[in-house]
Amino acid sequence: MEEYKNELEQLAVLGELSERLSKMNPVDAANELVEWQDKDKLLLVFRLLGKDHAAAIFTYLDKDLHRYLVEGISNIEMNDLFRRLALDDAVDIIEELPANMVNMILSSTSPEMRSAINRALQYPEYSAGSLMTVEYISLFETMTAGGAVDHIRKIGLDKETIYSCYVTGPTRKLVGAVSLRRLILAEKDETVGDLMTKGVVYAHTLEDQEEVARKFQEYDLNAMPVVDNEDRIVGIITIDDIVDVIEAENTEDFEKMAALHPSDDEYLKTGVVKLARNRIVWLLLLMISATFTGAIIGYYQGLLDGAVVLAAFIPMLMDTGGNCGSQASTLIIRGMAVGEIELSSWYRVLWKEFRVGVLVAAALTSVNYLRMRFFSSLTYSEKTPKDRVEFVVTITLFLTVVLAKLIGCALPMLAKKLKTDPALMAAPMLTTIVDALSLAIYFSIAAALLSL
Amino acid sequence: MEEYKNELEQLAVLGELSERLSKMNPVDAANELVEWQDKDKLLLVFRLLGKDHAAAIFTYLDKDLHRYLVEGISNIEMNDLFRRLALDDAVDIIEELPANMVNMILSSTSPEMRSAINRALQYPEYSAGSLMTVEYISLFETMTAGGAVDHIRKIGLDKETIYSCYVTGPTRKLVGAVSLRRLILAEKDETVGDLMTKGVVYAHTLEDQEEVARKFQEYDLNAMPVVDNEDRIVGIITIDDIVDVIEAENTEDFEKMAALHPSDDEYLKTGVVKLARNRIVWLLLLMISATFTGAIIGYYQGLLDGAVVLAAFIPMLMDTGGNCGSQASTLIIRGMAVGEIELSSWYRVLWKEFRVGVLVAAALTSVNYLRMRFFSSLTYSEKTPKDRVEFVVTITLFLTVVLAKLIGCALPMLAKKLKTDPALMAAPMLTTIVDALSLAIYFSIAAALLSL
Repeated sequence: MEEYKNELEQLAVLGELSERLSKMNPVDAANELVEWQDKDKLLLVFRLLGKDHAAAIFTYLDKDLHRYLVEGISNIEMNDLFRRLALDDAVDIIEELPANMVNMILSSTSPEMRSAINRALQYPEYSAGSLMTVEYISLFETMTAGGAVDHIRKIGLDKETIYSCYVTGPTRKLVGAVSLRRLILAEKDETVGDLMTKGVVYAHTLEDQEEVARKFQEYDLNAMPVVDNEDRIVGIITIDDIVDVIEAENTEDFEKMAALHPSDDEYLKTGVVKLARNRIVWLLLLMISATFTGAIIGYYQGLLDGAVVLAAFIPMLMDTGGNCGSQASTLIIRGMAVGEIELSSWYRVLWKEFRVGVLVAAALTSVNYLRMRFFSSLTYSEKTPKDRVEFVVTITLFLTVVLAKLIGCALPMLAKKLKTDPALMAAPMLTTIVDALSLAIYFSIAAALLSL
Repeated sequence: MEEYKNELEQLAVLGELSERLSKMNPVDAANELVEWQDKDKLLLVFRLLGKDHAAAIFTYLDKDLHRYLVEGISNIEMNDLFRRLALDDAVDIIEELPANMVNMILSSTSPEMRSAINRALQYPEYSAGSLMTVEYISLFETMTAGGAVDHIRKIGLDKETIYSCYVTGPTRKLVGAVSLRRLILAEKDETVGDLMTKGVVYAHTLEDQEEVARKFQEYDLNAMPVVDNEDRIVGIITIDDIVDVIEAENTEDFEKMAALHPSDDEYLKTGVVKLARNRIVWLLLLMISATFTGAIIGYYQGLLDGAVVLAAFIPMLMDTGGNCGSQASTLIIRGMAVGEIELSSWYRVLWKEFRVGVLVAAALTSVNYLRMRFFSSLTYSEKTPKDRVEFVVTITLFLTVVLAKLIGCALPMLAKKLKTDPALMAAPMLTTIVDALSLAIYFSIAAALLSL
C-alpha cells in the first residue's frame, strides 16, 4: 500500500517535470535532462513529451543519453523519432553510436531514410558531404514565383531550410539559386529563371569543411549547395552547421599550438588516460629536443665553470626569445587561417617582422641594460667583469629577439608551403628552436668576449 | 589627337571592366578592385556599375577605398548609395571613417537613415546594440498567417532579414517570434498569436557580443531580437554577423594567449610601429618577471659554482614545465570559452589534472631517466656524482610536471573567478610562474641532496 502510494507520487512528479520541459526551449530542456541523475525515469518522461518537442530535445542530449534512449525505445518509436529529426542531426547522432545500435536504427527506419543516412555516413569525416543534408528545395527555371512558393508550401515541412532554394537543370545539374525572400517579394508570374542568380558558390562533396567554412565567411552566405563529380546537386550545407565547424577548427588550432593532440571530446567527459595520451607524444618530443638545448650548455660546461653568473641570464634569454617567437608565429598562423595572409606575400611578412624585431629588440635591450646596470644582486668575478657580461647579454638579447621574430614568421609559412599544418608543425617546435639558437649565440659571444 | 585616341581606348577598357565586374559575385568584384592599383579610374568604373551591385561591392571594399569613394562621390550619390546598404553594414563602414567624413555622410543621407545610424553609433563597441540592425519585420498577434505574409511582401524589401519575424505587444514589447517558414507553411487564416513561439531567446542592447555569440551557438539560432531596458524590441542580430564575431573573438584569444595586445587590424595593413607597440608591453613585463627566475639562479650562484653540470638540465626542466602548463591552461581556457567547463566544477578539473599530471610525469621521468643513464655527454665531478644528479633531476621533473598541470588549470579558473579574462591573465604569465617554481624546486633539492 505504502509502495503503491509512493509510485503514484513519483508519477505525479514525472508528469509535472514533463509538463515543465514541454514549455522550455529544447536546448534548456536537454541541458536539464543531461544533469538529471535518475536515468530510470528518463524514458518515461521522454514518452510523456509531445513527439516533435521530444525529437527536438533528443537532438541536444549527449552521447550517453542518446545511447540510453536508443536502447530503451521500440522500433516503431525509433522510426518515428528519427523521422522527426533533421537528417544532418540524425547522422551526427548515429556517427557517435556503436555499430550494433547503428544497425538497429537503420533497420527500424524507413527505406528512404535508411538510404539517405547510409549515403551521408559514407562521406569522409570533416568533408562537405558529411556536413550536408539532402533535404533541400529544388526548383526549375520554368516555374513562376507563385508556383514555386506553392511548391515550397507543399513539400517544405520536411526540408532543413526553405529559405535558400536551388534551381536544377535536366540532369539535376545546379544552374542557379533563388532565395525565398526573392520569390515572396517578386510578382507571382515572374519566372524562377529570371529571378535566380547564376554563378552560385558551391562546394564539392569531398571538400574539406574548413575550406567550406572559409567560403561561407568570404561570401557572407547562409546556405551553400554541395555537388558531386558530375556537378549535380546532392545536398546543402546551412550556416548553423558552419558555426560549429568554425568553433571546432579554432579549438583544433588552439590545441595544436599548445602541443596537444586535437580531440573532439569534451574535457570533463574525457578519461584521465586519454587526456594523458593526447599530451604525452608532443611532450616527449619536445623534452627530447630540449635536451639538445641542454647539450649546448653541456658543451660550454668548461666555460661556465668559474663563470656561473652567466647561467643567471639563461631564463630571461630563453623566455624572451620564446615569447617574441610565439607572438610572431601566432599572428602569421592566425592570419593565414582567416585568409588575411597569403604565401605569396612571404617577403613582405619577413621584411615587416625584421623591422618590428629591430624596434622591439631596441626597447627590450635598453630596459634590460638599465636593469642590469642599476638593479643587480649577482656576484661578478674577475673572469666575468660586470660590464663585459652586460655587453654579452645585451648583444645576445638583441640578436635573439630579431631572430625569434624572423623564425616565428618563417616557420608557419614554410609549414604551409610544405603543405603541412602551420599550427601543428610550427607552433610547438618554435620555442625549442629559438631556445637552442639563443643559447648558442649567448655562449659563443661569451666565449669570444670573455677571457675564459 | 593621339591623346584623344588613348582616352577612347581607356574608356573602352573601363567599360569592359565594369561589365565584367557586374557579372561577378560582389565579394570577388570587391577583391579585384582592392587589388587594382589605378585609383583614378575607380570612381568611373564604380559609376558604370548598376547601383545595387555597386552598393553590394562597396560593402566589401577595404577602409582605404571606402574613404576614397566617399570623398569622390556627390551628396546625391552618397544618399543613394547608403540607402542601398544594409544598415549594419553602413554603420560598420562609417565607424572606420574619420569624423569629418562621417559628418559628410550623415548630412547627405535622409533624416530617418541619419537617426538610425546615429543611434547605432551610440552603442558601445562590441555590444549587442552596435551589432544589431534596426531593419526587422514586426508583427502583431492578431494578424493571420496570410495577412502577415502580405505585410512582409509589402515592406520586406528594406529589411535585413524577412525569415525571422518578431511579434510585439502594445508598447513594442517583445512577446514572441515566428519564422517565415512557419507562416508560409501554415493555413492562411491561422493567427500569428497561435503560430508564434513564446519565451524567445533575446539579447540586451548593452550585452557583450561574445555573450550573444554564445547564445546563438547554444540555441542554434539564425537571428536574435535585441531589447532595451524596458524590454522593447529595438533591433535584431543575424547569424552572418555572429560568424564574424566568433572569428574576431577567437583571434583575440589567440593574440592574448601569445602575449599580444589584441588588434582588429589586418597584419599586412598594420604599420611596423603599431605592430611593435602591440607586442612590447607584455614582452617587457614578461622579461622583467623572467629576471626573477634568473635571480633564483643568482641566489644559488655559490651552489652552482663547481656544479655547473646542473645548468645543463635547466632548459629541459623549464621547457617541459612550460609545455605541460600551457597544455592544461589551453584546454581550460578554451573549455571555459566554449562553455564546456563551468567554474563550479573546479574541484573536478583540479583532481583530473592532478591524475593526468601524475601519469604524464611518470612517462616523462622514465624516458628522461633512461636518456640520462645511457646517452649523456656531460662531465660529472666528485661533488656532483652522476647518479645523485640524475636522482635530483628526476624528482624535480616529476614535481614540475604535476605542479605545472595544476597551476595551468588553476590559473585560468582563478582569473575567471576574479572576473578578469583567462586568456589574457593566465596564459602569458604561466610560463614565468612555472619556470620560477621548477628552478626553485631544482636548486633546493640539489642543495639538500648534493654535498655542495
